[in-house]
Amino acid sequence: MTDPLLHALVALLGERYAEPGAAAGARLSDKHQRYHGKARAFVRPASTEQVAAVVRLCAEHAACVVVQGGNTGLMAAATPDDSGRAVLVSLERMNAIREVDTANDTLTAEAGCILRQVQLAAEGAGRLFPLSLGAEGSCTLGGNLGTNAGGTAVLRYGNARELTLGLEVVTAEGEIWHGLRGLRKDNTGYDLRDLYIGSEGTLGIITAATLKLYPLPASRATAYVAFASLADGVALLAHARAGFSAALTGFELMAADCLALVAEQFPGSVLPFDRLTQPWYALLEVSYHGDHADAVALMERVLEGALEQGLITDASLAQSVAQSHAMWQLREHMSEAQAREGRNMKHDISLPLSRIEAFVASTAVQLQAQFPGVRHYTFGHLGDGNLHYNIASPRGMSVAAHMARYHALSRVVHDNVHAHGGSISAEHGIGQRKRDELPRYKSTVELGLMRRIKRALDPHNRLNPGKVIALENDTL
Amino acid sequence: MTDPLLHALVALLGERYAEPGAAAGARLSDKHQRYHGKARAFVRPASTEQVAAVVRLCAEHAACVVVQGGNTGLMAAATPDDSGRAVLVSLERMNAIREVDTANDTLTAEAGCILRQVQLAAEGAGRLFPLSLGAEGSCTLGGNLGTNAGGTAVLRYGNARELTLGLEVVTAEGEIWHGLRGLRKDNTGYDLRDLYIGSEGTLGIITAATLKLYPLPASRATAYVAFASLADGVALLAHARAGFSAALTGFELMAADCLALVAEQFPGSVLPFDRLTQPWYALLEVSYHGDHADAVALMERVLEGALEQGLITDASLAQSVAQSHAMWQLREHMSEAQAREGRNMKHDISLPLSRIEAFVASTAVQLQAQFPGVRHYTFGHLGDGNLHYNIASPRGMSVAAHMARYHALSRVVHDNVHAHGGSISAEHGIGQRKRDELPRYKSTVELGLMRRIKRALDPHNRLNPGKVIALENDTL
Repeated sequence: MTDPLLHALVALLGERYAEPGAAAGARLSDKHQRYHGKARAFVRPASTEQVAAVVRLCAEHAACVVVQGGNTGLMAAATPDDSGRAVLVSLERMNAIREVDTANDTLTAEAGCILRQVQLAAEGAGRLFPLSLGAEGSCTLGGNLGTNAGGTAVLRYGNARELTLGLEVVTAEGEIWHGLRGLRKDNTGYDLRDLYIGSEGTLGIITAATLKLYPLPASRATAYVAFASLADGVALLAHARAGFSAALTGFELMAADCLALVAEQFPGSVLPFDRLTQPWYALLEVSYHGDHADAVALMERVLEGALEQGLITDASLAQSVAQSHAMWQLREHMSEAQAREGRNMKHDISLPLSRIEAFVASTAVQLQAQFPGVRHYTFGHLGDGNLHYNIASPRGMSVAAHMARYHALSRVVHDNVHAHGGSISAEHGIGQRKRDELPRYKSTVELGLMRRIKRALDPHNRLNPGKVIALENDTL
Repeated sequence: MTDPLLHALVALLGERYAEPGAAAGARLSDKHQRYHGKARAFVRPASTEQVAAVVRLCAEHAACVVVQGGNTGLMAAATPDDSGRAVLVSLERMNAIREVDTANDTLTAEAGCILRQVQLAAEGAGRLFPLSLGAEGSCTLGGNLGTNAGGTAVLRYGNARELTLGLEVVTAEGEIWHGLRGLRKDNTGYDLRDLYIGSEGTLGIITAATLKLYPLPASRATAYVAFASLADGVALLAHARAGFSAALTGFELMAADCLALVAEQFPGSVLPFDRLTQPWYALLEVSYHGDHADAVALMERVLEGALEQGLITDASLAQSVAQSHAMWQLREHMSEAQAREGRNMKHDISLPLSRIEAFVASTAVQLQAQFPGVRHYTFGHLGDGNLHYNIASPRGMSVAAHMARYHALSRVVHDNVHAHGGSISAEHGIGQRKRDELPRYKSTVELGLMRRIKRALDPHNRLNPGKVIALENDTL
């Protein structure tokens, strides 16, 4: 052990929790094994004070700090670069639920808590913590906040940002901001909270958060509907928002090809309709304060109205919890079904709902002109304007040959997203993967403001350097 | 006209819209005539480009910029200081509704729009823009965003921050950030939007915003309830949130003394109960997707449950729109009733709901010990933990003698708020009025972060200097 920094970290945390960088193992690569880095040390502090002390030691020893949660992110935001100058910090030991305050409908949890653990703590107190996404069994709260995670309940409850009232943060200087407030209204100065949320560990290290809780719904109703066009789907969404109001908690879009693929790759699947006669389908979920029969009656009434108006051609209501579960399984198997068929190009995009049909139509024309035969798997959280717009290889072309065209093809997709007023990253963030695309789609004014904020809060570029925004001088 | 800056402003905007500072008249004082300032010039630009050009001229001529909306704020955030170095900017001519997009449920409006105008534009398109507060007939959208306004619908829809998707902002350098995005999900970099919202014109000038719209509720039900303690009130809120879910759009607290005062000062008032036998009352409003009879039935069911559990002692349901209106009138007349009785000391505070009863009890004991006989008028948005905690003079003491003790008395209130985890400004902001209180209640770490952000985005302290946060050097 010749590195004086490692020596000091061991003195602080002990040998078990302060190790050479290589000990980080799989944590040195991103989930999809696209990015690989090195670390000068790998540490697992147990408290906010220890995190702050680690940051101060890194400052003294000219190291930078990369914090990592469940390592489930898709943009490699938590993977260190290969310079070996980063100390990799895992907050896995900071996994306490510090407080559940049912009178205030808040829960305070440490950043290393697994999201599922937070959901269960809320349920144990008779409350709902609504953030819900595919990786909830392994992603951590810190990562959810660092990336402003979205998921399937944003339509009703908002992103991670809207679910957070207060934060505890370690700054680039190793100081602690004690901002764990449980207040719905607090207008006493600049909104530091929302600046840290979504900053992907580049402005500070979130160590704990005070989160909003909601009542557990008394009942749920689930249905599938079929419709002829995305314009009908958008009109259906408006109809459903008016008819269900805030009881509408899910509106998930699936192209017919997506459903067919799930049925093919998961032979036990039960499709909601005998034949897929329409190009588009949606899964609707209503969470209700009344009993189940009332929830189903409300669902029936609103969908009958949609049928009468010609917005949908067919509807299938879940008659039991098992049927509702089977409907959600179709949605949840979608990514895995595509993975089993072979890798494809994923785009996590969002659009104004008023422009989503025009985007899909014009992008398909351009893609077919430039990349004949590519196949579209389009699904996502239509209620939020968020599409997972995935492109698979033409029949007969190897996946490798298809993936080799990644940049050219994604350029077409993202240019079209931008032209339609959309975002090239709806819920996955920027990390290192999309960092160099930002200057194409953001103005120099906006990039300049982002750089000023980065320099103001992390003047030595110590926190997760090289992520989100390129600085002129990325080294310490 | 000897000031070269005024000369340049006239060349830019014309004499009608670029005048000497004295022409600003009443705009040089705050609404309550507590603060009075001077201006070097008074300008009314008509476009974002003109605002940007004004800021650039101010930079060239070593002037600073104070932007003002409806001048209804309570913290004197929009009143220039008396140095005469500020150009006062009114955005009253920037009052266009630029777009209503019903498919996307968004509305884009300029900062000079009166809030009521925005509400009506939404209603005209069959949608709800939920921000609602007493000054809505004269306050402007820019001021609402600059102060992150709250109001009576926060419980369901959130503050101004949560209702905003995108912004257009003029920076301290006179550049324009075109951030008018209509997206529910967009994780492409730092959250500039929420940094500008609530910054009271000290970081940038908001010139337009893209706002969220909601379905218009199909029906409403209103009720008054009586309860014996704040603990019961907090338990009732939890019961109502579970029973109504998101249909609960109002939960306004009133102490019995407040209701009695309204009845006294507004002799036409109709109290919901023959006698005020309990110390506390609340106005509940439910906004419903079904018809009126269903809304009333739901209200009855939930309030019957509250009666059975002993959370309330009595309930009175509005049987008509007129009765509902009369109930809301009681709430809306509360500030004016107090003003008619004589000035009192207002405190706009918020607390975690779990600590609100302890705060009210302990603060009353301390106040009575130090200021015997002061009278409490406590009301507010209990659903948000937001109290308007007003203190009137003891019977027999002159209002002037009472108000002379303002700082000593407010110190007791705010110290207690802080000790109970609350905020000394729930929805009114900081401005110049509470600026020097912040260091007592915020850590040096948080104040330091705020100063860094101010310096990063406004390095020459050009925008609304002296507001929100004290800098070491407040002059240009």
